[in-house]
Amino acid sequence: MRDQKFAEATNRGLDMDPRIVEHAKLLVNYCTNVKRGDNVLVEITDEDGLELAVEVCREVASLGAHPMIVTCPTEFTRALLESTPLGDLAVTPRIVVEAMRASDVDIFVRSDSNTRFLETMDSKRMAIRSKAMKPYREEFLKKRWTATIHPTNAHAQEGGMSLSEYREFVYSSVLRDWKSEITRMKPLKDKMDKVSEVRLIGTDTDLSFSIKGRIAVIDDAKLNLPGGEVFTAPVDDSATGTIFFDLPSVYSRKEVTDIRLTFEKGLIVDYSASKNESLLKELIATDEGSKRLGEFGVGTNKGITRSTKNILFDEKIAGTIHLAIGDAYKECGGTNKSAVHWDMIKTVKPGQILMDGESVQKDGKFSWE
Amino acid sequence: MRDQKFAEATNRGLDMDPRIVEHAKLLVNYCTNVKRGDNVLVEITDEDGLELAVEVCREVASLGAHPMIVTCPTEFTRALLESTPLGDLAVTPRIVVEAMRASDVDIFVRSDSNTRFLETMDSKRMAIRSKAMKPYREEFLKKRWTATIHPTNAHAQEGGMSLSEYREFVYSSVLRDWKSEITRMKPLKDKMDKVSEVRLIGTDTDLSFSIKGRIAVIDDAKLNLPGGEVFTAPVDDSATGTIFFDLPSVYSRKEVTDIRLTFEKGLIVDYSASKNESLLKELIATDEGSKRLGEFGVGTNKGITRSTKNILFDEKIAGTIHLAIGDAYKECGGTNKSAVHWDMIKTVKPGQILMDGESVQKDGKFSWE
Repeated sequence: MRDQKFAEATNRGLDMDPRIVEHAKLLVNYCTNVKRGDNVLVEITDEDGLELAVEVCREVASLGAHPMIVTCPTEFTRALLESTPLGDLAVTPRIVVEAMRASDVDIFVRSDSNTRFLETMDSKRMAIRSKAMKPYREEFLKKRWTATIHPTNAHAQEGGMSLSEYREFVYSSVLRDWKSEITRMKPLKDKMDKVSEVRLIGTDTDLSFSIKGRIAVIDDAKLNLPGGEVFTAPVDDSATGTIFFDLPSVYSRKEVTDIRLTFEKGLIVDYSASKNESLLKELIATDEGSKRLGEFGVGTNKGITRSTKNILFDEKIAGTIHLAIGDAYKECGGTNKSAVHWDMIKTVKPGQILMDGESVQKDGKFSWE
Repeated sequence: MRDQKFAEATNRGLDMDPRIVEHAKLLVNYCTNVKRGDNVLVEITDEDGLELAVEVCREVASLGAHPMIVTCPTEFTRALLESTPLGDLAVTPRIVVEAMRASDVDIFVRSDSNTRFLETMDSKRMAIRSKAMKPYREEFLKKRWTATIHPTNAHAQEGGMSLSEYREFVYSSVLRDWKSEITRMKPLKDKMDKVSEVRLIGTDTDLSFSIKGRIAVIDDAKLNLPGGEVFTAPVDDSATGTIFFDLPSVYSRKEVTDIRLTFEKGLIVDYSASKNESLLKELIATDEGSKRLGEFGVGTNKGITRSTKNILFDEKIAGTIHLAIGDAYKECGGTNKSAVHWDMIKTVKPGQILMDGESVQKDGKFSWE
């Protein structure tokens, strides 16, 4: 098969990685299930993403559906944020909302040429823009949508890899047999649906919370490609104990490291971080909900073997758990509400996940594996 | 001023040509007159155009208007044309029409990475797609729109130049003082509005036709950047004689060279070409209107000194005239109707343009210059 795929890709240009075509086909046929007559909005950030976008559009066209590519280069976003007069920044851009409204499917591809393009940007302007874009996000969520990443040097650099290494990393996590991945995640979901108490034990960590009555959701890679986690929402007042997140957490592309949180009756009562602690403080202080847990997830994607400071991958590393402070997912039966939803990741090698006192995962290995 | 412009551009990236910023400002402030609150659709073809698109968006944003970039790579267009099932190719893509409808302004930038990407494409499929896209073009024409080109290697290659030469060529034709260009074109318009008979004399050429009662229009570079021609519509039955077009004429990116046309009472009665004569034959045979003249124009842009096989520039070469067969412009009072409008260009060095028997231009120089 590989030879045939190479031949197919080679017909489209000698330098085309055949995995780009496989990635495109997954996005169109699996993630968003594009059908004849669909209008498909393909959104990319920087120009490197065009090679994937074109292959997505080729697949969309072959199904008798209608694609359009909207490009939001990082420099474009930066220019908008810094050049638009403040009053106008608060205005929802009609054209962007209407393009989304006219679509049935949205395929969003991050392909940044620079992942730190907002590092020095005024956060007030970013908040104003974000609020103005709310109708756009609401439209987006009404569609059959998916989000993914196309390997660029910038994303590779952020993850501390060469581009060729990073391509291996991305495609080994993305180009999986998602049906068997779902089968592999099923026992964990079943367990989580049944139990009441979760206890996490590891380096500087002993935290307990309840997930009683909540629903565990399998991330089957339809909304995010790659997928590979099972997640739910902790009961609001239940978290007690301390946790140390050994992997970096990134919020709006700002990195917070070595986060420690202590909970009492669901509330964060103590916190620290070795880098950007002030951002952690600010986010926890956002509202009532941001002082509580909104998500508990377990990573299961064996193609993801290390942190690359990108939540799309990090939260799915096999052998990690993550907790989010803030807003909980309704589909999990979650009740916590917040303007914030921020994931923090912890390896459980060494460590243990206990559910109702029974060891479910030890040092990264599920008890049934 | 140049230093300041360089400094401004340098702030945006060491390799940014400051003329890109000037080009962007012309498109936004002069050609389309973008105002606060406008929704501005910026369309480009291949990725090289993104640097101009981003500068356009920066300028648009600074005015409190709202930009969106739609990218149609040449490979995207090719993929759509060849991969879409025939029945679906005839369907108007809703999302594309709606994005256009939601805009107030459209700025279209050609930035092809390959100008011959449709050379081997089935013309029947192209015609079906073109028909399906009619509602899009109709929406486009309702907007404040402009079309321009961003210098790429492909366009340079098509014109037989290096990229740096071609950049000089493009910017010397685009970055002009358009107010004084209009002043320079005014005497020609006044003359054309007044006279009845035009006679073109040159190599293998002696052709006469009437423009009596027609209106001459100055191309002030608002719809096409660069501009620089004065054009009108010949009276339908008036053309008599023979003309030889020494510059190549391109239709749907196919080149026809050394076209000779002979007219009697407005109708083409004989024709020949040294390359792609069959295409010439096919186009003349399209309908009744395609056998007659639809346009007579005189190029006046002194920044354009040679043919680059791109009609956007070729028809404006100072010292050339062009005639189009087919559809005439209503704003000129033209009455000829056709599905075709195809421009053919001729140098008038050596040669002469006579109007009502008086020499208006000889060997490329206007009588009043």
